Amino acid sequence: MSDRTTLLAQRLAAVRAQTLALAAPLSEADCQVQSMPDASPVKWHLAHTTWFFETFVLERFEPGFRPWHPAFRVLFNSYYQGVGDQHPRPQRGLVTRPALAEVKAWRASVDERLQALLAAPPPGQGDAIAALVELGLQHEQQHQELILADLLHLLSCNPLAPAYADAPPPAVHDAAPPGGWTRVDGGLAEIGHAGAGFAFDNETPRHRVYLRPCALADDLVTQGDWRAFMADGGYDDARWWLAAGWDWRQAQGIAAPLYWRRDGEGGWCRFTLRGLQPLDERAPVVHVSAYEADAYARWHGAQHGAPHRLPTEAEWEQAAQRAGTAAIDRARGVDAGALTPLPPSATLPAGPRQLFGEVWQWTASAYQAYPGFRAWDGAVGEYNAKFMVNQLVLRGGSCATPRSHLRTSYRNFFPPEARWQFSGLRLARDLD
Amino acid sequence: MSDRTTLLAQRLAAVRAQTLALAAPLSEADCQVQSMPDASPVKWHLAHTTWFFETFVLERFEPGFRPWHPAFRVLFNSYYQGVGDQHPRPQRGLVTRPALAEVKAWRASVDERLQALLAAPPPGQGDAIAALVELGLQHEQQHQELILADLLHLLSCNPLAPAYADAPPPAVHDAAPPGGWTRVDGGLAEIGHAGAGFAFDNETPRHRVYLRPCALADDLVTQGDWRAFMADGGYDDARWWLAAGWDWRQAQGIAAPLYWRRDGEGGWCRFTLRGLQPLDERAPVVHVSAYEADAYARWHGAQHGAPHRLPTEAEWEQAAQRAGTAAIDRARGVDAGALTPLPPSATLPAGPRQLFGEVWQWTASAYQAYPGFRAWDGAVGEYNAKFMVNQLVLRGGSCATPRSHLRTSYRNFFPPEARWQFSGLRLARDLD
Amino acid sequence: MSDRTTLLAQRLAAVRAQTLALAAPLSEADCQVQSMPDASPVKWHLAHTTWFFETFVLERFEPGFRPWHPAFRVLFNSYYQGVGDQHPRPQRGLVTRPALAEVKAWRASVDERLQALLAAPPPGQGDAIAALVELGLQHEQQHQELILADLLHLLSCNPLAPAYADAPPPAVHDAAPPGGWTRVDGGLAEIGHAGAGFAFDNETPRHRVYLRPCALADDLVTQGDWRAFMADGGYDDARWWLAAGWDWRQAQGIAAPLYWRRDGEGGWCRFTLRGLQPLDERAPVVHVSAYEADAYARWHGAQHGAPHRLPTEAEWEQAAQRAGTAAIDRARGVDAGALTPLPPSATLPAGPRQLFGEVWQWTASAYQAYPGFRAWDGAVGEYNAKFMVNQLVLRGGSCATPRSHLRTSYRNFFPPEARWQFSGLRLARDLD
Amino acid sequence: MSDRTTLLAQRLAAVRAQTLALAAPLSEADCQVQSMPDASPVKWHLAHTTWFFETFVLERFEPGFRPWHPAFRVLFNSYYQGVGDQHPRPQRGLVTRPALAEVKAWRASVDERLQALLAAPPPGQGDAIAALVELGLQHEQQHQELILADLLHLLSCNPLAPAYADAPPPAVHDAAPPGGWTRVDGGLAEIGHAGAGFAFDNETPRHRVYLRPCALADDLVTQGDWRAFMADGGYDDARWWLAAGWDWRQAQGIAAPLYWRRDGEGGWCRFTLRGLQPLDERAPVVHVSAYEADAYARWHGAQHGAPHRLPTEAEWEQAAQRAGTAAIDRARGVDAGALTPLPPSATLPAGPRQLFGEVWQWTASAYQAYPGFRAWDGAVGEYNAKFMVNQLVLRGGSCATPRSHLRTSYRNFFPPEARWQFSGLRLARDLD
Repeated sequence: MSDRTTLLAQRLAAVRAQTLALAAPLSEADCQVQSMPDASPVKWHLAHTTWFFETFVLERFEPGFRPWHPAFRVLFNSYYQGVGDQHPRPQRGLVTRPALAEVKAWRASVDERLQALLAAPPPGQGDAIAALVELGLQHEQQHQELILADLLHLLSCNPLAPAYADAPPPAVHDAAPPGGWTRVDGGLAEIGHAGAGFAFDNETPRHRVYLRPCALADDLVTQGDWRAFMADGGYDDARWWLAAGWDWRQAQGIAAPLYWRRDGEGGWCRFTLRGLQPLDERAPVVHVSAYEADAYARWHGAQHGAPHRLPTEAEWEQAAQRAGTAAIDRARGVDAGALTPLPPSATLPAGPRQLFGEVWQWTASAYQAYPGFRAWDGAVGEYNAKFMVNQLVLRGGSCATPRSHLRTSYRNFFPPEARWQFSGLRLARDLD
Repeated sequence: MSDRTTLLAQRLAAVRAQTLALAAPLSEADCQVQSMPDASPVKWHLAHTTWFFETFVLERFEPGFRPWHPAFRVLFNSYYQGVGDQHPRPQRGLVTRPALAEVKAWRASVDERLQALLAAPPPGQGDAIAALVELGLQHEQQHQELILADLLHLLSCNPLAPAYADAPPPAVHDAAPPGGWTRVDGGLAEIGHAGAGFAFDNETPRHRVYLRPCALADDLVTQGDWRAFMADGGYDDARWWLAAGWDWRQAQGIAAPLYWRRDGEGGWCRFTLRGLQPLDERAPVVHVSAYEADAYARWHGAQHGAPHRLPTEAEWEQAAQRAGTAAIDRARGVDAGALTPLPPSATLPAGPRQLFGEVWQWTASAYQAYPGFRAWDGAVGEYNAKFMVNQLVLRGGSCATPRSHLRTSYRNFFPPEARWQFSGLRLARDLD
Repeated sequence: MSDRTTLLAQRLAAVRAQTLALAAPLSEADCQVQSMPDASPVKWHLAHTTWFFETFVLERFEPGFRPWHPAFRVLFNSYYQGVGDQHPRPQRGLVTRPALAEVKAWRASVDERLQALLAAPPPGQGDAIAALVELGLQHEQQHQELILADLLHLLSCNPLAPAYADAPPPAVHDAAPPGGWTRVDGGLAEIGHAGAGFAFDNETPRHRVYLRPCALADDLVTQGDWRAFMADGGYDDARWWLAAGWDWRQAQGIAAPLYWRRDGEGGWCRFTLRGLQPLDERAPVVHVSAYEADAYARWHGAQHGAPHRLPTEAEWEQAAQRAGTAAIDRARGVDAGALTPLPPSATLPAGPRQLFGEVWQWTASAYQAYPGFRAWDGAVGEYNAKFMVNQLVLRGGSCATPRSHLRTSYRNFFPPEARWQFSGLRLARDLD
Repeated sequence: MSDRTTLLAQRLAAVRAQTLALAAPLSEADCQVQSMPDASPVKWHLAHTTWFFETFVLERFEPGFRPWHPAFRVLFNSYYQGVGDQHPRPQRGLVTRPALAEVKAWRASVDERLQALLAAPPPGQGDAIAALVELGLQHEQQHQELILADLLHLLSCNPLAPAYADAPPPAVHDAAPPGGWTRVDGGLAEIGHAGAGFAFDNETPRHRVYLRPCALADDLVTQGDWRAFMADGGYDDARWWLAAGWDWRQAQGIAAPLYWRRDGEGGWCRFTLRGLQPLDERAPVVHVSAYEADAYARWHGAQHGAPHRLPTEAEWEQAAQRAGTAAIDRARGVDAGALTPLPPSATLPAGPRQLFGEVWQWTASAYQAYPGFRAWDGAVGEYNAKFMVNQLVLRGGSCATPRSHLRTSYRNFFPPEARWQFSGLRLARDLD
């Protein structure tokens, strides 16, 4: 095996093990239930990520391939029309058989066969196999984050408010004082992925954009900030809201971030993977929709006599390019184990803080193709391209994202009303 | 303990054990999931039946009562407004904690305390306790049937078609030839419960009704009969259908009984608790709605040049009174273990066969109060009375009903579109 | 022409003219709009009643029949599957052409041809024609009431609260003091239609029923009574409500009769065909559902320490048989022109008052076939029979019913949640 | 009056008269009905455009202003939260009073008072008044197009297929042969409005964008092109569709453009303002959603071995800038009276044809704020800004757009599933 292949094989083992580790504290029942159509059962995530390797790697490259179970090809296909039919998404939670134990056995079998294939690929196919295994790992890491987000939603539906992890979040003893704004220059700039290293097709091609000068807030909007917005009636004043956001807020009776609850003493607490917790005034707000983020920005600008807004993804990426890979190295991500966003440390360098690995940051940018974009060939071309409408881009990664999955050019995307992801915001304003 | 109390204590142990026995073949995941709002998870049934005893017996009569868990009083309340709030029915399946093991521990604890209470009731309260324990047992037996009906629905949602029990249904080697009609006399008659023995409040008071003479079919409508109805286009001809039934059939695309599926060779098979099975031409059809039953009757009459219809509950009960308790003694019920209706045996006496314990038989009677009806006092008065609108009465009990739960005056009730119960039909026609 | 035919021809002219008279105060826009799927545009009523005569009389009996417009046969068919397709009910209001003027021209043409046919029927068909014309007249009178009910709903959707008729309702200066209860004997009784005179198929056959003795309230429940129910929290106490009624009340936020509105001074007023009017404490409450009526009865009984309920239709009809045709002759109906129910006059004889022609009285009886019922042959057999599920019987006729349309054996029926009809209630209680 | 004011006063009279002229062929019923929540009644359009002038001009500037009717301020407010409440959009069609005649009288009164105000404005307010009257005229022209689009939808709901105008569309005898592609250069470019002349706030500021070179199709996609797409199974192949588009297509059963119908001989015809018409193979396809447009482009590219797509709005605007104002002068728009798109004439110059005034052209661009965008101050700031999410930009204007309303920088916007507007498409492809 080449060094590169050895490394890939090691990462394969590690990433796959990490998925199981996330599910380890859960009962079979916890892994089974689907709490809403947008969320999926943990067991389904365990199966689907295995399906991805079986279907896109083993089925194509393994000599004498035979599927673990012929029905799983449809049962655990998420949305790849090019691979055939899919079990309906809202019914994922109804499939009590195969049992969790069988899914784990399937995982083990596929892992073993992947390792064998990496060790001895059919002649001339090593690179293609490695590329698809890499894609499968990136895919699996995305589902690691979804496991936590979907599980949090499920546990939140239980009036007993059970915790995924019992201990309270770690304290940040050296929290930084509030930051200011950092300039992003105008003029021609480049964004998008180029060069070596993995990227999804939607991050390419790297291309020029023309920017106006602007400033980005050094801090993410905090839970304390959000309380001020609520105290000022921000949820009840149509002036701050997009029309579709106002309709959504009215129809759903939205009056606080998802998982915020009255604490019984006139204040608020929040449900987290660590159970019910008090607000942390200095920690980033999380589980807000793009509608709420946008309304907050407009309200915040009005308090300060200047238009505030969400940054575009190009502006954000410029700031992230300047911050460099050190910003990713410093990021918490899921690896830090907090499972909820924390305040920034005073040890962080000047400029935008917590760009990575605390909360996904809603941008003002619709999720659309970059100029010159080409989707990948074949069924994996459905991975990203077919969702390029009615969604907004989020940047930066969250406390549920593996650190090795963070990337400056990474484009996450969700509909503007989505709140069950670990989504927050950072403000921007025009300079001139 | 009096003999009566000893007997009750024995029955309590037996009925409670039988509920657990029904759940024994199931995984924690099987017990967790709710496949539709009308159905409930098996774990919920295990918990709710325990809640019933804890709330209506222990809470009122046990000295020094303390609840197993204070939140369970709301969490496992089904619909008793008089006892307080209820966890929303469609969200029963989202409650992954308490775990199945804790629910079983709760069951054991409540069982033990009930036995202690029966053995040594507070002075003067023995009769009240015995009456409520009896009600709890009847209630538990109803949920035993619901466990099977709800589980069948859940398993039917799985494209792998998993079976609750692996073996095929037992063969009936002495199936009776088709029967004829049996007369029910007209004039003044009495129906309803009177005298000793348990009955629900909705079976009382026994009262007079004036009947026209009619005839009841000796046989339940069979799967073979139903195939003829389908082959003749019965589902596509509005003439046979009530307007609401036709709208339902159109909106839902109904074209066969629930759980019937194409067998891949132009015919039909059916999904049962024993997995996919071929049709049994001589066995009763099951899992049809009242709309389908009513349409079948009208179609059948038109084939024979005479109006056929469903019997009223008074007509059915007259026939059942005539058949006597021997008909119940001969009934299969869930005790026979077939888990699906079977053909009648040739050894059955003349007259209406399979009145009890094969399929619930839709009647033409709306579920309404008997003349002079009084609901039970207190919260248990919500058991039956508040559902007396937009439902139809079914009679006789099914292959999922405990034999000791069958009763001549028993009134089951469901909305006309319900199909997931073990519901079938028997025809009637006017005589004059 | 025979005397009977002459009379029929005169009634045909009068009834058809009365329909136009009801529409006379309305604009083309008023006649066009459908305010909800359950209601129909006035123009549609004018057209459909004409369609009924064209399809069931002229098409079958007129020599050389040609339809006014071939597309109208589908366009104005309400629900007769036996006659072919129907334009979808919720889209009746979208048909702006034919214009109102054309519908009126069609009416005039059909009227003229009906008169010609009555005057000179094809040999041997005079009786069949007369029977169908009679049916068409009864049908037209039903639609006269629907015109008023549907129009009231439409006008109620306009925030300007426009009136159909400007003047306030007539004052009743000799209102009777509150009445008591009148006994209905138990034992064998007969209800249903027999003998000469028109009746719908669902009123037949006359048949025996066995009754327990009961008492009927002399008065309809009044607006003042209803205020007391509301003041006592009747809408907020689940104890009084059927489960389906409570769900409906919760889902729809029901807290008062339909068309009751806050008067801006802490009280209530009501929207009527005569615009916004103050409550009339002594006048019958109207526009309540069966769920509300049933809850009121249960609440009222609890105030008086005895179970009160709605009467069955058999009990009601016994009382009406005793009151005799004089009660109908005294009834107001739409002919009195009040357009809203009024208090009873002190001149009325003892016993149940306002049995006829004030408000339709919800009964406790599900709308089902009488023993021995046979629907009419042919497509007109769809008139009543196919609706015999999930509806309740109302008796007596309302302030929007033509007096000549009132009948002791008349069975009106609506789903329990319907409120836009002129529906109210009268209480009953058991005697023994 | 200054010349500019005189001109404005003349345009005011002309535009307002044109709105009435559009409604002239319609009955009161035609003007009353709302066929779906997205569409509005013609009477509502007549009233709302009048409301706009009354509320934003007369109320603020007319000395001694008194509203025509105080309730109209809410009743005919569309969506301006800054002005107060709004009558619910889906209930616009239920308001049968005020009558059409009163709305017209209101229009006449407001027109007269606006003219008086223009002729003698309060000192120092002439410019503000002129600016708002100008905005009101632009607003009115938008509603002129909506009147035609909404009316077409209403008439399409009538199975009689009535025509707004009886004559068939004019024939184009000199239709051009199919065109090719025209290059749009890459590099820095400018788009957006600057300088004199009216523009909406969303067209500003003019700003730089960096473009890759691309080519735009000279022709709009035609009805003949679309037939080929359909014949090739374009609606049934998920490969061409965005995921949200495919879900929409499946849920709605979409298989052809809106208003296309089977012609009874295996082909298709289309419903237009001129009634049912045969397809015109050379005329632009119209009434397609962005989902369909996007799928067509992807399919078309696959037929030609190159990725085809919709143009971005910047690419489109570059081409339109090059075509110059002559392209607008040549445009048909609603002024040409065809009321449906027509084939291009052979007399048109080389390059992209029919950029203006045939069909609105879906672009690939999400409707978002231009860099540096500021919404107008006050309630009119709600005109465009609050809709900047989940919509796509359309460019060019249609056969229902007044020619004087066409503009190179004009940004129309609708959700991707909208089809009842006069929307079509033009293809683009990358060059490099």
